[in-house]
Amino acid sequence: MATATQLSQRVLAGDIRAASRLMRNIDDGVQSATADLQALFPRTGRAYIIGITGSPGAGKSTLTDRLIARYRKQGKRVGVLAVDPTSPFTGGAILGDRIRMQEHATDPGVFIRSLATRGNLGGLSRATGDCIRVMDAMGQDIVLVETVGVGQDEIDIAQMAHTTIVVAVPGMGDDVQAIKAGILEVADVFAVNKADLDGADRMVRELRMMLELRHAVKAPAMDHDAHHRMVLAKAQGHHVEEPPSAREWEPPILKVVAARNQGIDELVDAVEQHRLFLDETGLRRDRERARAAMQFVALLRERLLRGALGRLERERGRLDEVASRIAERQADPYALAEELASQLSE
Amino acid sequence: MATATQLSQRVLAGDIRAASRLMRNIDDGVQSATADLQALFPRTGRAYIIGITGSPGAGKSTLTDRLIARYRKQGKRVGVLAVDPTSPFTGGAILGDRIRMQEHATDPGVFIRSLATRGNLGGLSRATGDCIRVMDAMGQDIVLVETVGVGQDEIDIAQMAHTTIVVAVPGMGDDVQAIKAGILEVADVFAVNKADLDGADRMVRELRMMLELRHAVKAPAMDHDAHHRMVLAKAQGHHVEEPPSAREWEPPILKVVAARNQGIDELVDAVEQHRLFLDETGLRRDRERARAAMQFVALLRERLLRGALGRLERERGRLDEVASRIAERQADPYALAEELASQLSE
Repeated sequence: MATATQLSQRVLAGDIRAASRLMRNIDDGVQSATADLQALFPRTGRAYIIGITGSPGAGKSTLTDRLIARYRKQGKRVGVLAVDPTSPFTGGAILGDRIRMQEHATDPGVFIRSLATRGNLGGLSRATGDCIRVMDAMGQDIVLVETVGVGQDEIDIAQMAHTTIVVAVPGMGDDVQAIKAGILEVADVFAVNKADLDGADRMVRELRMMLELRHAVKAPAMDHDAHHRMVLAKAQGHHVEEPPSAREWEPPILKVVAARNQGIDELVDAVEQHRLFLDETGLRRDRERARAAMQFVALLRERLLRGALGRLERERGRLDEVASRIAERQADPYALAEELASQLSE
Repeated sequence: MATATQLSQRVLAGDIRAASRLMRNIDDGVQSATADLQALFPRTGRAYIIGITGSPGAGKSTLTDRLIARYRKQGKRVGVLAVDPTSPFTGGAILGDRIRMQEHATDPGVFIRSLATRGNLGGLSRATGDCIRVMDAMGQDIVLVETVGVGQDEIDIAQMAHTTIVVAVPGMGDDVQAIKAGILEVADVFAVNKADLDGADRMVRELRMMLELRHAVKAPAMDHDAHHRMVLAKAQGHHVEEPPSAREWEPPILKVVAARNQGIDELVDAVEQHRLFLDETGLRRDRERARAAMQFVALLRERLLRGALGRLERERGRLDEVASRIAERQADPYALAEELASQLSE
């Protein structure tokens, strides 16, 4: 388990095919991936991770495409991880966007992969974190992670980023409302895309109002980092109140037209400003720590579960048999979980 | 831990305030909730659970509202669980929809609650399952669970339902695309809402085409139940291929105008047809078993983690200290998780 496999050595040497293979193994839940990830781990922690999130149709992948080009111009190696099932990067799209991506397909400084993991309890965010680490270890300077901005899993993923860009688009009706609900606490930068459409200014105003309201209603608001601390505390089983934040970052709201390549420089600038803010305030280290805690807890949980289910099978029968008895109310899942866990803790 | 608390006894007696209190405890992660849930468990398994999912703005809560009225007319007790942060049921809405709900607010046969859980690793689906069981135990015949149809957590939640209604709405552009991506495997019935708008027939055609494509491309498709079996296998740590399904349910596509109360009878009929299908094919029992397995695994995982983190703290220091060392690459999270888990399994 502790020795590096050939695959991880090839990843460290920058072998694209090895990295693809490892990421596929992660996505498929192949056991050997853990040893590879362990071997890569000391070489991670250098990439700057940028989350790009928003509703389907907000134009996230066009924006991602523009950001790739911009960072490539700066000479940076770019990794792209598409977790959004509607992204053309993932092949989920039925429209023609795919063609656009071709220009980067032949650029060896760009590495684009998508994640398909489904139906794996909480496994999506776990797999995403692992794939980010693969891209980090293989030497990508920037990792762009594209997600759909609804759902807890997606919010967990957004929290893996150093800077999260929330992409909004005018005229989608309930959109501000949807943003308000789940995504506000993870937004570091707002990009109002398709800003040449009617309603762009209104959208900007509404977003600004929303941010102000946040201050007024529950000042100081729980920001990204306060949220991280809360996750950390919850992972330890504490019941926690929303804590006040340290020093506030004021998320800028930028108008862009990704399709026409407008406003992208300003967006890249805003990301850079946020990076400086994180460094100066020491919040970057706090975020790294919260991320490490989440990763470790996920690893531990998986490993513990595997052991416990093995024991269950030896002593009580296969999981589906036990589940049948539970479904028929002949077995008590609470008592069973307690019993199994106490046996293991003795 | 094993004796019923007063709260659960009051829930079984149908006490609305006790049920609200318990659900709040579940949402807040209060420890004592486990004992209450354990006491309720033998009295659960009677409610029929209907999932209602779709994008924000699809009109899910108006539809939910109509379904409540219809089931009440049949003399059934109805529970509503709003997990959708944009739902007016949750108070997340900034529009005026809330007023509509008032008619049910005074009906003792209707019990509406929302879930706010955020930032709790995979905790949203766990809390939803628990709250469904509370409503079940207190005697609601029908439990309607409203979620936003994107994101893994939401898909996990949809899988707790016996019948899942996917609400689509014409003219939302990328919508079919979004549906295609994540939600197809959980849809038992499609409701094209706002069917008086332009594009409704086109939407129906596109959905039908999508279902046919599914057959053509990967026949037989992985349906709801095959998906359940896969989850079960994955929970046991197996690597699994998508299995073929047993007997196919053909999800009907219905046009409704929830705001004008049109098509609701047909929708209720379709749900009833699906219920009969599940009973006749024995798939209902399969689903119950998969659900029981998921619940048990979640319980076990949480309990194991609590024990392991306690041990970690005694032997290695607090989680955030360990996380700091991991973030600085001074500790190896993989080795640490392995070590801690093997200690517990000895």
